[in-house]
This record gives sequence, structure tokens and C-alpha cells, in this order.
Amino acid sequence: MSLIIIGTVAFDAIETPFGKTDKIVGGAATYASLAASYFYNKAKIVAVVGDDFPKADIDSFKDHGIDTEGLQVKAGEKSFFWSGKYHNDMNSRDTLITELNVLENFDPIIPESYQDCEYLMLGNLTPQVQQTVIKRLKNRPKLIVMDTMNFWMDIMMDDLLETIKLVDVLTINDAEARQLSGEYSLVKAAKKILTMGPKYLIIKKGEHGALLFHEDKIFSAPALPLAEVFDPTGAGDTFAGGFIGYLAKVGTINFNNMKNAIIYGSALASFCVEKFGTEKLLNLTEEEVAARIQEFVNLSAFTIEA
Amino acid sequence: MSLIIIGTVAFDAIETPFGKTDKIVGGAATYASLAASYFYNKAKIVAVVGDDFPKADIDSFKDHGIDTEGLQVKAGEKSFFWSGKYHNDMNSRDTLITELNVLENFDPIIPESYQDCEYLMLGNLTPQVQQTVIKRLKNRPKLIVMDTMNFWMDIMMDDLLETIKLVDVLTINDAEARQLSGEYSLVKAAKKILTMGPKYLIIKKGEHGALLFHEDKIFSAPALPLAEVFDPTGAGDTFAGGFIGYLAKVGTINFNNMKNAIIYGSALASFCVEKFGTEKLLNLTEEEVAARIQEFVNLSAFTIEA
Repeated sequence: MSLIIIGTVAFDAIETPFGKTDKIVGGAATYASLAASYFYNKAKIVAVVGDDFPKADIDSFKDHGIDTEGLQVKAGEKSFFWSGKYHNDMNSRDTLITELNVLENFDPIIPESYQDCEYLMLGNLTPQVQQTVIKRLKNRPKLIVMDTMNFWMDIMMDDLLETIKLVDVLTINDAEARQLSGEYSLVKAAKKILTMGPKYLIIKKGEHGALLFHEDKIFSAPALPLAEVFDPTGAGDTFAGGFIGYLAKVGTINFNNMKNAIIYGSALASFCVEKFGTEKLLNLTEEEVAARIQEFVNLSAFTIEA
Repeated sequence: MSLIIIGTVAFDAIETPFGKTDKIVGGAATYASLAASYFYNKAKIVAVVGDDFPKADIDSFKDHGIDTEGLQVKAGEKSFFWSGKYHNDMNSRDTLITELNVLENFDPIIPESYQDCEYLMLGNLTPQVQQTVIKRLKNRPKLIVMDTMNFWMDIMMDDLLETIKLVDVLTINDAEARQLSGEYSLVKAAKKILTMGPKYLIIKKGEHGALLFHEDKIFSAPALPLAEVFDPTGAGDTFAGGFIGYLAKVGTINFNNMKNAIIYGSALASFCVEKFGTEKLLNLTEEEVAARIQEFVNLSAFTIEA
């Protein structure tokens, strides 16, 4: 059995009120697989880079137990590059540069050794590529989690809706839930989206936490209030990776495990934003993760005898 | 021992995407005392109305066990009147009319029978009037909770800061916490505000719940996701009233009881917004309140063995 994570492996150049970076390693599959590695040490990535992508960085995936057989390296081509600048509130940002490069004709290859996939994380990519991966797996995974964004809703809603039909869990933010459903109330939005395919919907609300919807049940997860958000890049991907990594580890899909998976994903996302890029995610100890989980427990626990 | 609630008792005319009302009874002390009455049935109000205020509505306070000896009725004068229109998102609103009327020269009278006050809720009013009430109590109450708003920060920050110095708990929203502290991060904002006087700070985040800060501890309370928010008027006052009513009932001030008080306040606020004005708050049963509390428990409970 295995966990496959598909998404971008790329370069980012980031500017925040705290500073700016040159090209550093980023991408949805990068953040998600690093996050997943803290719970499940055999994640397999499907992605594409150019030959400008440093071998040392591919090695650092391997150091985290991440299988890179499905990572295509395109000779003579350049890796996907995104550059953005965050505003003072850290909640909004301007995209400065988007160079698709290798992503333009990304045809995901699923190595034979990946065909035992039980957990599939579809990181943010075009809905067609996400769908191609599902179709290239001989057996349907036990759990398919899909992350997407408003960009695809704007320009290819039909493709997106087709892919959404095929997944178990959809993770989007509150504005995207409203856009996808046409409903302002998140309860109504969730009700509609849960008729579109997914059995579980996670609405990410950034500094306000996340909501999990399933049948008539709702779980509200807190976000850890942070004194400093240094760089929000990759927080959503980290959340998704921690989420599916935890589920792959426990191996049973139910509402209670989903709730815990959200707490684990949120905890890793709270680390991610404390430094630029993947810096913090590359070097966490088990003790640090456990202590952070305890902070989430303390943050939201209360005892009422009703 | 007693609980005193000071604030407006007034008329509101409200327009929301769901409809509009004529003049209906509203005001911070109205909402807060009704909410408190579900937990503590001897709340005493300090407020002022004109002789246009219906006797039947004063009687409905009494029906909830609320003592109105401190409610002044000014002959020949008119009650405070506010009219507002909510936008489609229900989070923002325009004030259409504000007629101060009796509020212009409000000089709060503390009846002798109120001097046993142990719990004092300072509903949103000018900081000077809030301070006057504190000074007219012969013994300092065991707990003073103060609600305020950006309006007073804009026009009388110095008076506000003087009053804040005297209270134990301050309840404001996230934008107001940022304005009061000059810090964007709510963690940093709370740290600063906790040096201004209050030992506890509650930051209300509407549909995103509330945060309680005390020393180095933080509690994150969820908000109940609602399919329909019919009329948000009075939700903050209802929250504050439920909060202090619960504390007056349990009689012990500590972080755990504060957490529960926030859940009780949030539960009552979630009822308040389901109908126009005080309609829902006037007729709740104990069973309805208990069931709503259970919804809050279910909403945020998770069990992780770290």
C-alpha cells in the first residue's frame, strides 16, 4: 500500500513584509510530501521539473523517505516558477511572475511501483492532470483527496466539476466554497458541494481554522494564533499533506480520524508559516510536532457538563 | 450578591436581505439581560428610556426575572433610536439613523438595592458613563466586564483607555483589537491590551468564533456554522450577557469557567441571530439551550492521544 502525492515541484521567489527570497524550492507536492513524511514515511510523488532543479533538493526528498520515481526531470527545460508578494495583512498577495515551463505539457507518469496506491493526494494543478492521474491508476485508491483553487473555477469550471465528481475529500477555502456553490452561507455551500461528488468537504479559513463537513456533521478546527506569520506560502499544501499523511498512517477512514487529521495538518501548517519556504518543514523533530499538537488540544478543549 | 447590566434599552429599525422591521425593542442592556436571564435570574439593569417605551416591554424584562429599578423613564423624552441596513454578507452594515434622545444626558442611577453588585456588565456606551457606574458602586465588584466599540476609539480614545484600566474583562472584535493596540497580529494585540488593565481579553470574530486571552493562555471558541443568519443585531450583546450570566451563576472566576462562559455566550448569540431583534431570545426553553450547548461540544471536540 502507498500514498501518492501529485502536484508541482517548483521554484518560488517570495516577498513578505519580513524580507524576500531568491528562487527557493516550493510547489504543492513539495510542501505536501514533506508534511506527510512526518506521519507516513513512504510517500511517492508524481511531478515534473526541468534540469535546472538541483539534485541536492531531490536528495532532500529522499532524506524524508519520499519516493521520487514519479518525478520526471525534463532535459533542456526549466522548472515551474512563481513569484509573489504578500501584503501587510499576509492574507492577500500579488502574483508577480508565473512561468509555467515544464508544467505546460505535464503528462503525469505513474510508475508501476506506484500502482499499490491506497491514498491519493491531488495537489493543486489543472483539473485535467488531476483526473489523468486517477484514470492511470489501475485500482481506485481507498481515499482521494483533492485540493484546488479559484483560478480553475474562473477558467475551467466544467473540467473542475468533472474531477470533483471522482474524489472523496475536497479542500478549498471559504471564498472558493462560496464561488463553487453560489451560496454565501458555508453550511448551504457545503450541502451543495457534498452533492457534487466528495463525501467530505474541508473549508480552510486560514487564521480562523478549518471546517470539516460530512453528511450532517460539522467539525470546527481552530487555528493556532501566531505572533508572527513569516511566510504563508505552502500552508494549504502543508495542511493537505499532513492531513493525508496522518490518514495513511492510521489506515482507517472515519469522521473521528478525519478530525484528528485536520488537527495534524493544521499543526504542520502552523510550523510552515514560521519561516520562508520549506525551511521549517525540513527539520522538525517528533517532539516539536507532539508539543504543537498539544497546543492545539489546549487551545480548544473545554469541559461542560450539560 | 447581584449582577448589574448597564447599557442601552432602545428602539431599532432593522433591514436585512430577509426583510425589515418597524421600530422594535433593542439595545445592549436588553439583549445582554435577556441572555443573562437564562443562567442567572436576578439581573439588574441600569439604563434610560423615554416615556414612549411601552410598559409591556418593561414587563417582559420582569417576566425574565430582570430587576428594572435602575431603568429610568424620562417623562416627555424619547428613547434612543437606531436604524441600520445590513449588506448581503451580513457582516457589514450601514447606519441609517441614530437619534440619541434620552441617551444624550444619561446619568446612570444606581439604586441602593443594587449596591450588593458582584458582577458588573458594562454594555456598549460612552466610556464616561461606563466609568461613572463603576465609581458609583460603593464596593468594587468581583468581576467587571466591559464591551465597547471602534466608535469610541475613533472619538474618545483617552476616556476609553481610562475606563479600560478599571475592568477585568474586555470584549471587542478583531478589528477593534487591532485598532486599540496598533498590532495586526492578534497575539501581539492581546499581549498589549492585557497591559492596559484587563486581565482577560475576549476577541469576538463573529462567524469565526472568539478568542480568550489570559496571561499566556489562549482559548479558541468555535462559532456554530449557521445556514441562515437572519439578523445579527444584538449578537455581541447577547454573547456578553450569556457570558457574565453564566459566570454569575457558577460564582467562581477562573480560566476554565471563562471558557465555558464563552461557549454559553456563543450559544445564546447563535439563537439571537435566527430571528429579528429579541424575538428568539424571549422564548427559549432550557432544553433548547442545553441542546445548543451540546452542538458546540460536538462541533469542536476531538480526541488525540499524543
